[in-house]
Amino acid sequence: MSDLLNHRAGTLARHVIENAEQLRIDVYSDGGTVLDFGVKAAGGLSAGLMLARLCLADSADVSIQPGTIDGVGWPQVQVYSDSPVEACLCSQYAGWQIALEKYFAMGSGPIRAAAGIEELFTKLDYQEQAARTVGVLETGQLPGSDVFEYLAEKTGIAAEQILLAVAPTSSQAGNLQVVARSLETCLHKLFEVGFDVRRVVSGLGVAPLSPVAGDDLAGIGRTNDAILYGGRVTLYVTGDDDSIAELGPKVPSSASECFGQPFLQVFEDAGRDFYKIDPHLFSPAEVVFQNVDTGRVHQFGAIQSDVLRASFGL
Amino acid sequence: MSDLLNHRAGTLARHVIENAEQLRIDVYSDGGTVLDFGVKAAGGLSAGLMLARLCLADSADVSIQPGTIDGVGWPQVQVYSDSPVEACLCSQYAGWQIALEKYFAMGSGPIRAAAGIEELFTKLDYQEQAARTVGVLETGQLPGSDVFEYLAEKTGIAAEQILLAVAPTSSQAGNLQVVARSLETCLHKLFEVGFDVRRVVSGLGVAPLSPVAGDDLAGIGRTNDAILYGGRVTLYVTGDDDSIAELGPKVPSSASECFGQPFLQVFEDAGRDFYKIDPHLFSPAEVVFQNVDTGRVHQFGAIQSDVLRASFGL
Amino acid sequence: MSDLLNHRAGTLARHVIENAEQLRIDVYSDGGTVLDFGVKAAGGLSAGLMLARLCLADSADVSIQPGTIDGVGWPQVQVYSDSPVEACLCSQYAGWQIALEKYFAMGSGPIRAAAGIEELFTKLDYQEQAARTVGVLETGQLPGSDVFEYLAEKTGIAAEQILLAVAPTSSQAGNLQVVARSLETCLHKLFEVGFDVRRVVSGLGVAPLSPVAGDDLAGIGRTNDAILYGGRVTLYVTGDDDSIAELGPKVPSSASECFGQPFLQVFEDAGRDFYKIDPHLFSPAEVVFQNVDTGRVHQFGAIQSDVLRASFGL
Repeated sequence: MSDLLNHRAGTLARHVIENAEQLRIDVYSDGGTVLDFGVKAAGGLSAGLMLARLCLADSADVSIQPGTIDGVGWPQVQVYSDSPVEACLCSQYAGWQIALEKYFAMGSGPIRAAAGIEELFTKLDYQEQAARTVGVLETGQLPGSDVFEYLAEKTGIAAEQILLAVAPTSSQAGNLQVVARSLETCLHKLFEVGFDVRRVVSGLGVAPLSPVAGDDLAGIGRTNDAILYGGRVTLYVTGDDDSIAELGPKVPSSASECFGQPFLQVFEDAGRDFYKIDPHLFSPAEVVFQNVDTGRVHQFGAIQSDVLRASFGL
Repeated sequence: MSDLLNHRAGTLARHVIENAEQLRIDVYSDGGTVLDFGVKAAGGLSAGLMLARLCLADSADVSIQPGTIDGVGWPQVQVYSDSPVEACLCSQYAGWQIALEKYFAMGSGPIRAAAGIEELFTKLDYQEQAARTVGVLETGQLPGSDVFEYLAEKTGIAAEQILLAVAPTSSQAGNLQVVARSLETCLHKLFEVGFDVRRVVSGLGVAPLSPVAGDDLAGIGRTNDAILYGGRVTLYVTGDDDSIAELGPKVPSSASECFGQPFLQVFEDAGRDFYKIDPHLFSPAEVVFQNVDTGRVHQFGAIQSDVLRASFGL
Repeated sequence: MSDLLNHRAGTLARHVIENAEQLRIDVYSDGGTVLDFGVKAAGGLSAGLMLARLCLADSADVSIQPGTIDGVGWPQVQVYSDSPVEACLCSQYAGWQIALEKYFAMGSGPIRAAAGIEELFTKLDYQEQAARTVGVLETGQLPGSDVFEYLAEKTGIAAEQILLAVAPTSSQAGNLQVVARSLETCLHKLFEVGFDVRRVVSGLGVAPLSPVAGDDLAGIGRTNDAILYGGRVTLYVTGDDDSIAELGPKVPSSASECFGQPFLQVFEDAGRDFYKIDPHLFSPAEVVFQNVDTGRVHQFGAIQSDVLRASFGL
């Protein structure tokens, strides 16, 4: 078995550690290695880019680009990858809920491929055997030795060889790394609607960088809105066009009946129960499929800046 | 004689070879060294950027940037250079038709400067003497030892010291490297209308990344349209303003009477004979001259998104 | 005392010197080391980016991005930093007027922090003790040994350990480095209106790259207009919202009664006396505060493209 994603992320992590001070992140050991990108540490824009790249196992390009929302200057986050399935689904997707007695975090990064406990890895027939691993935790709690021991057990990798990068949603870096999920969200939606994601040979996504929120729930609202109402994705796809024409309309967020309200309102309407929210809502606003075999182009959805402005308080 | 362009391209080529797997390109020897960016290999966005940089002898910055076409999110390719004549005309311009009995390719890259057989090199008084050389072939055919022997004869460089990067127009990398020619197309048009191109001290071009086409002819149509109807170029020029005011109106694609139809339609109207197409059509849609001596700004042409949409199937 | 900014700039300067030919800059010694970015040397876009990074003590990301002015393609300069006070105020701000008998230049770069003679350094409680230092001079005069001796006396650093990067406003590099001051101008305006700039934890600015002017006075006009009428800044701020709501309206250039005229006209109206111009004019056109503690967003000002077009001759 390969250790491709974990190897790439590990190499990037060493670079991050060397530049910790400039990135305003803290590095320390507590069973394994903790990289604090935003719990006690300040983080920043560059820390957010690095955290996003760690999530993507350094298998995508991530950058901050100028943009506008209804004529007002507004930074946006661009991500593109030529290994979108590995980078986004096998690494970046926050598919591992790490729940211990006194600890909870949404887990992403290549540690998921080393654990391989999600059904997704069976379906994608992908798993990694690594001597060292990197995980990213979206949480306001710094992990202690109990978390490392738990992950060591799940991955078979010694705790001291596990590196965890941690930031809450309402920190600068934590906020940016979620907005860098425009392409990932699209890939996962394709996966959910039954599209063969292996057909996506390259992908590119852009979304406006949501303002850091005052608390994590508000942060979850805004980062989701950045993608649901401002995210645009281009998919480079092989194979037939009929399946794109059939499944494509289900892909953008507008395919959901919840579409049109800021995410926190949808959450309230669902009785504050994430699991009652239509899972089909989680997708970029606009998706363009480019069939690299046939040359056909298929466009679905559109951004909705009024919801962005309401969510961002602009 | 210098070997500047070939030296730079050679250094970049070694980097490309080291990252071949991640770039999804194939590297092998067949007389000389072949870098397959898209014939049998898959290539991708990053491969396309690298292929463009090889064409430009690594003497320009090339990047993928977010953009829109009539409000729809659409990636674009930006290129800028402070040695536009060398990068674009002496290297990137596909001025060498490599035609053997059973082989045809449009040749570009610094190998052209090593061969120096085009009239352009005499006019620009530029030639290189290199021990190693890099060529880029736009073709669907992988070159065999006969092609390397032919090129060795034309350049005086041993076949095993020749590196050829190959991709058809309708591959991901081949498509992107053509769209990265917005600045080059403009420089060549200036050259054709008799403007002293040595006056262009820097240049920047942007064009929408056309969708990969189903076949090479359609690919030639779309990549041309990306530049003819979506390309924007800024030229930083020395010297007088009168010559800019006089020749400038001839520079953008709109100066041609063929302007307004997708390239493939123009091709059909010309009886499918490239040589009957008005050569003045080949230029970006919009050109801004900035005279760095006098401070005067001259703008000509404009993009035409309706033709882009028709061509791209958007 | 730290030598952080001077150390970073020194490391970048070595890289610049190694690539001097490609950057079209001249390097020579005349008491100390001179890097001519645009007096006799040609410079260019890449030289401009490097000069901007030297000004910022390599503590910010600077890039050229595609943009538009009223639908015409127009390059813009983006800058962002996670240490905006150090990068912009302690280094990039052109706060040191270096006036000798026969020499005048606006001085910026980390040499200012090594000299520490401006009141700003007392207020910000920042100073550096460095063995080597880097200064940037906006001037059309190359500095001789008398300038190095003067600076050696002011900084306590031996002349031969001083490196000066020099370019006039109306050169390609000198022009670009001023347009890269969108964020700096905003920080300085905050400082002037009494906002605690230490609250700005990150910042991002974008401004259109003004055309190189025919002479330095015209260059000062255009580069100012690029920021005053085309600059957009996003500030990531900690602390309370009341102070932002109170001081924010004073921050964009539109807060000045001089707003609305090209800078050179304002200069004429002030009897060609810089010191009679309202200092509150010097700020970006649009400023968005994002409070990273409370999540509140505050927007002030707007770009004004008609003044840009008049100033740029577009």
